[in-house]
Amino acid sequence: MTKYTLRTTVRRPYGETVEAVRSELAAAGFGILTEIDLKATLKAKLDVEVAPQVILGACRPQLAHQAIEADPSIAALLPCNVVVRAVDDSITVVEAFDPEAMMSFAGRDQAGDTLRAVATDARQRLTAALAALESN
Amino acid sequence: MTKYTLRTTVRRPYGETVEAVRSELAAAGFGILTEIDLKATLKAKLDVEVAPQVILGACRPQLAHQAIEADPSIAALLPCNVVVRAVDDSITVVEAFDPEAMMSFAGRDQAGDTLRAVATDARQRLTAALAALESN
Repeated sequence: MTKYTLRTTVRRPYGETVEAVRSELAAAGFGILTEIDLKATLKAKLDVEVAPQVILGACRPQLAHQAIEADPSIAALLPCNVVVRAVDDSITVVEAFDPEAMMSFAGRDQAGDTLRAVATDARQRLTAALAALESN
Repeated sequence: MTKYTLRTTVRRPYGETVEAVRSELAAAGFGILTEIDLKATLKAKLDVEVAPQVILGACRPQLAHQAIEADPSIAALLPCNVVVRAVDDSITVVEAFDPEAMMSFAGRDQAGDTLRAVATDARQRLTAALAALESN
């Protein structure tokens, strides 16, 4: 299976990790535009139980603007999702959609060059945010 | 550039199309979990002007549940974005992330088979919703 996420596992409880992810995304220049409590949504809609998890929609407006100027369709890939999911009471996984996976959609033209530059920038910022979670 | 969206263009104004898209997504079995007014967001954050456009995060809970049971990482690709974007006062583009593009991430195992089945189901529903927009 193609790897399409950037991922880290931290030895911190879920709720604390969600707050740490918010802080690190902000430090890396991302705002959070959307938030889906997947556990609560699936419980409410289907009455099924899944691990505590939230999907945070992270967006750096400067990068989003450059990307849609190059290719308006890229809006369908925004924002960049960062999932925080409990493994157990003390271990939590943080997994972001890897902007590099987006590059498979970029063409060999100027718009493609812009998208690659945007994806590289976003990837570096997300990688830094995940690394900070591990060390803090 | 790889085609990664399902797209239609309708001869209806933007606001009316947004409401029609909500109805057709509901008719196709999708709830809308998130909503980003991209024009308003970029105006507020960067003071730039882009075409009126909204990113609707569509989710069919049954499919989302099957997908994350097969591969928890797939949460990073949820919900399925449907973008409505004004071309001018009377023409609007509706563009959904094509679930088939997700299949490039599916492996040759049982989890991959589940993801392919989920993507096929979601794609048929989205295609029907876009077709209904054209004919109504």
